[in-house]
Amino acid sequence: MNGAESLARTLTGAGVEVCFANPGTSEMHFVAALDRVEGLRCVLGLFEGVVTGAADGYARMADKPASTLLHLGPGLANGLANVHNARRANTPMVNVVGDHATYHKEFDAPLNADVEGVARPFSDWVRTSSDVRSVARDGAAAVAAALAPPGRISTLILPADASWEEADGPAPPEPVEARAAAAPDAVAGAARALRSGEPAVLFLGGPAVREPGLTLAGRIAASTGARLVAQTHNARVERGAGRVAVDFLPYPVDDALATLEGTRHLLLVGAKAPVAFFAYPGKPSELSPKGCDVRTLATPAEDVVGALEALADELDARKEAAPQELETPPPGGGPPGFGNAAAAVAAAFPEGAIVVDEALTGAAAFLLGTRGAAPHDYLQITGGAIGMGLPVATGAAVACPDRKVVCLQADGSAMYTVQALWTQAREGLDVTTVILDNRSYAILKWELANLGAGGGRKAHDMMELDRPALDWVAMARAMGVEAGRAETIEEFGRQLDAGLRSQGPYLIDLVL
Amino acid sequence: MNGAESLARTLTGAGVEVCFANPGTSEMHFVAALDRVEGLRCVLGLFEGVVTGAADGYARMADKPASTLLHLGPGLANGLANVHNARRANTPMVNVVGDHATYHKEFDAPLNADVEGVARPFSDWVRTSSDVRSVARDGAAAVAAALAPPGRISTLILPADASWEEADGPAPPEPVEARAAAAPDAVAGAARALRSGEPAVLFLGGPAVREPGLTLAGRIAASTGARLVAQTHNARVERGAGRVAVDFLPYPVDDALATLEGTRHLLLVGAKAPVAFFAYPGKPSELSPKGCDVRTLATPAEDVVGALEALADELDARKEAAPQELETPPPGGGPPGFGNAAAAVAAAFPEGAIVVDEALTGAAAFLLGTRGAAPHDYLQITGGAIGMGLPVATGAAVACPDRKVVCLQADGSAMYTVQALWTQAREGLDVTTVILDNRSYAILKWELANLGAGGGRKAHDMMELDRPALDWVAMARAMGVEAGRAETIEEFGRQLDAGLRSQGPYLIDLVL
Repeated sequence: MNGAESLARTLTGAGVEVCFANPGTSEMHFVAALDRVEGLRCVLGLFEGVVTGAADGYARMADKPASTLLHLGPGLANGLANVHNARRANTPMVNVVGDHATYHKEFDAPLNADVEGVARPFSDWVRTSSDVRSVARDGAAAVAAALAPPGRISTLILPADASWEEADGPAPPEPVEARAAAAPDAVAGAARALRSGEPAVLFLGGPAVREPGLTLAGRIAASTGARLVAQTHNARVERGAGRVAVDFLPYPVDDALATLEGTRHLLLVGAKAPVAFFAYPGKPSELSPKGCDVRTLATPAEDVVGALEALADELDARKEAAPQELETPPPGGGPPGFGNAAAAVAAAFPEGAIVVDEALTGAAAFLLGTRGAAPHDYLQITGGAIGMGLPVATGAAVACPDRKVVCLQADGSAMYTVQALWTQAREGLDVTTVILDNRSYAILKWELANLGAGGGRKAHDMMELDRPALDWVAMARAMGVEAGRAETIEEFGRQLDAGLRSQGPYLIDLVL
Repeated sequence: MNGAESLARTLTGAGVEVCFANPGTSEMHFVAALDRVEGLRCVLGLFEGVVTGAADGYARMADKPASTLLHLGPGLANGLANVHNARRANTPMVNVVGDHATYHKEFDAPLNADVEGVARPFSDWVRTSSDVRSVARDGAAAVAAALAPPGRISTLILPADASWEEADGPAPPEPVEARAAAAPDAVAGAARALRSGEPAVLFLGGPAVREPGLTLAGRIAASTGARLVAQTHNARVERGAGRVAVDFLPYPVDDALATLEGTRHLLLVGAKAPVAFFAYPGKPSELSPKGCDVRTLATPAEDVVGALEALADELDARKEAAPQELETPPPGGGPPGFGNAAAAVAAAFPEGAIVVDEALTGAAAFLLGTRGAAPHDYLQITGGAIGMGLPVATGAAVACPDRKVVCLQADGSAMYTVQALWTQAREGLDVTTVILDNRSYAILKWELANLGAGGGRKAHDMMELDRPALDWVAMARAMGVEAGRAETIEEFGRQLDAGLRSQGPYLIDLVL
C-alpha cells in the first residue's frame, strides 16, 4: 500500500470515521485510497471554509475526532477561519494538507507556499511527513495530539511523494493523554468560597454545560445559592425543558458587567476568566467585578466533571436544581422580529434538536426564547469568525442523522460559507436553516455606535446589504435546497413546520 | 484626526484610490474615516476572498496599488488564497488588517490570533502599528514596500487603539525603489546566444508580455528567429489582432516539454525558469530541455523593458514582428465545447476587452481560440489558488469602467468566491461571466488519471458536482445579476450578445 492508504487506514484505526474534504491534485492518492479503505466516509465541500466548519460541527456532536483533507497552502488558508472557531471550541481536529512532492518544493512552483507557516497560527500541532515510512506514525500522532485535552488542532502536511510511494502499512493508535485532575487545593478553595455565603457564580464552559457536569453544577448551585452563568460562546450546551438552566454572559460589555455585578467569588469551571469580546474606549477588558475573588476549579483541559463531583461531595450538595420547565409561549403577533421569531422556533422544534446559533445581533433573543423549549443542544460561534453556522449545521447533521438540526443564521455571515447548502443537498442532511434577513451587517452598525466612531453615509453604506437585496430562496434552490420566504410571523410558523416536516435540507428566508 | 484617518489620508496621498473591504468591529474607525477623506473609494465584498481577488484584478488593470481592509486573523485568512495569487502576479498590494487594541491582546479574547503569523507566509512586508503616532508613517512604508519591484504584498496590522487615538496627521509618500538594471553581462550574453543561430526561446513574463516590452521582444524574435513563449500563467498579457503573438507554455508537463524540445538557449525575460505546476511520478520538475543554456536577461524585478531595448539595440533588431491578424472564424456547430465556445467568445468581444481566465481545463482552448480576436488584455490565474476569476473580473471592472470584462470561469472554482457576483451587481460593473458548466472538477479527473493514482467510485464521486447540479442562473439572480443559460452554441452566441450589450453584470451558464 502507498503512503496515502497507510494514512487513511491509520486514521480509521484511531477512530476517525468521516473526512470532510476539498481535495486537489496533490491529494489524489489519498482520494484514490478511499475506495480501498473501509469505514472512512468522505464528505465533499465546495469551499474549504465549509469543510473545516462541518468537521467542527461533526466533532461537537459526534464526540469523535474531526478530520479534513485540504489542498496546499491556499486551500488550508481558505479553511482557517473555521479552524479558528474549532480551536476555540476545543474540538479535536486533524487536518491533512497535501503539499508538493518533497523534491519539487525547491522549484517554487506557482502554488508553492510555506504550508507549515500557514498552519501554525491556528494549530496546536504541526508536522510534515517528509518520508513515506513515517506517514502512518505521523497520522497516529496527529490524532493523539488532537484528542489531548481539551481537544486540539493537529495539522499534518503530506507531500505528494510521501503519499504515492510504497509504505509499510498503517500504524496503531497512539495513547491519548487523559484529563489531569484539578489542582489539589482547587476543590477545597472553591468549597470555602461557596460556604462564605457571599454572592458567588459558577462560570461554566466545556464539559460543565453538558451532562453530567451540568447536573452536578446544578446541585452545587441549589445547595449553596451560587448562580450558574455559562461563558458567552460555547461549543455545545445541553439545555431546554427538564435540564438545569444556566444564564449566559451577555456579549455587550455593559450587560456583562451588570450580570456579574456584586459577585464576590467567580469560580471558573471549564471556562477561562471572562473578558470583553472587543475593546471599547473607556471600557474594561476584564469583566469580573473589581476585587472579586476569581479562582479556577478546573481549567478547560482538566477533569471538569471530576472536579464538580469532588466539590459536590465536599459540600454534601445533594439537592437537585429545579429543572427548567417546558415553556413555549406562542409567538407574539406583529411584524417578525428576533423575539417572536425565537418563540416560534422554540415552539416548533422537536425534542433532541440541535440548534446552531450564528444569529449575532439576534443571538440573545434566541437564547432567551429557546430556554424553555424541548431539550436540545445549542452550538455557538466560539471563535467569533463569522461563516460558521451553515457549515457547523452541516457537520452536526452528518454526526446525528436522526436528529433535527435548526440553524439560526444571520444573513451577512451566511454569505461567507454559503456553499454549505450544496453539501446539505448532496448528503440529504436534515437541516432547517433560518436566514435572519435584515439586509445589513446589523452588528457592525451597533458596534460603530458603541465605539462612538461616528461615520456618515459612506461608512454606513459598508454595512448595508440591500443594494441589491439577496434572494435567499433563489440562492438555496440554486444549490438544490428547497426554500420558502416568510414576511409575517404566521408565515414563519408555517415555513418552520414545512422545514421540520421535511427529511432533507430546507431554508427559510425570514424577512425582518 | 485619529490614527485611522491619518492612515486613510496617507494611503490616498501615496496613490491608493480604491480600498476593497470587508470590515469588522476593529476597523470601524477606519470605515468612519471614509466620510472625512476625499478620494478613497471603498468597495464592499461579502467575503474576504472576493476582496483580495478584486484588489488584485484592480491593480493589474489600473497599474496602481491595490488595497484591502480586513478584519483580524480569521478575516485575513479568508483572503489569503487570492493574496497568494496576487503575490504570484507581482501585484503591489497593501492589506490593512485591524487587530484588537494593544492592551486587549493579552486577554486572548475569542477572536484573538497571531495576525502577523497569519500574514507572513503570503506577505513580503509585515508590520504592526502599535503606536498611533507611527500609523501614518507605517502606512507610507507599506505602500512603498508594495510598489517595490516587481510588486509586493504589504500587510499592515492596525490595533484598534492605534486607530482611535489622536494622531499627528498623514505622512508623505515614501520614495519607491526603482527597477534595477539587468546584470551588466546579461544583454551581451543574450545577444551571443541569439547570434549563435541555434534554436532559442525568449521566455516572457511580467512587463515582457505588455507594451512596450512585447513589441521589443517581437523585433528581437523577428530579427533572430528566436521564438516567443510566455510563461503559463501571467498577470496580464496584451494580445489579439495587431499585437505581437506569443505562444504560452502549456500546463501539461508533456506538452510543455514538447514545446521547449530542441531549444538550445532559453532566455528568461521577466520570467523565472519554467517548472512543472505539480510533480508527477517519473516526470521532471524542470521543463527546459537537458543541456539547454538557460540564462536570465532580466528578472521579474529588474528593468525588463530596458533590457529588451538594450538587447534590441545590441542586435540592431529593427525588423518588426508580423502583427497577429484579426481571425475570428465562426464557431463550429454541434454541442458546446471549449473549442467552439472559445470561437464564439473571440467573435463576440469588442476591442479593448479584458478577459479573465479561470477556465482551467478549458484554458488552453480559450487561449488558442482568442489569439486572433480584437486586441484585449488577458488575466490569468497566476498562483493556482482557485476562486480568482469572479473577484479579479470584479476588480478589473472597477479599474476600467469603460471596458468590457469577460470572465471565463470554471464552475467548481466559481463556487469558492461566488459572492463576487453581488459586488458586481452593487457597483453596476460591466462584467460578462461565462460559467463553464461541466458539473465536475474536471481538472482533478484529468490529474487523477495523469498521476496514475487509480481510484474507484468513491474517489470519482469527490470530483462530481452534479448531485445536485448547481443552477447558475438562479445563483446569479439571487445576487442581483441578470443571467441566461445556453445549451447550444447558437444560444451561447445569443447570450454573449445579450451580456456584452448590457452595461452591467451578466452571467451565462454555458452547459457543456
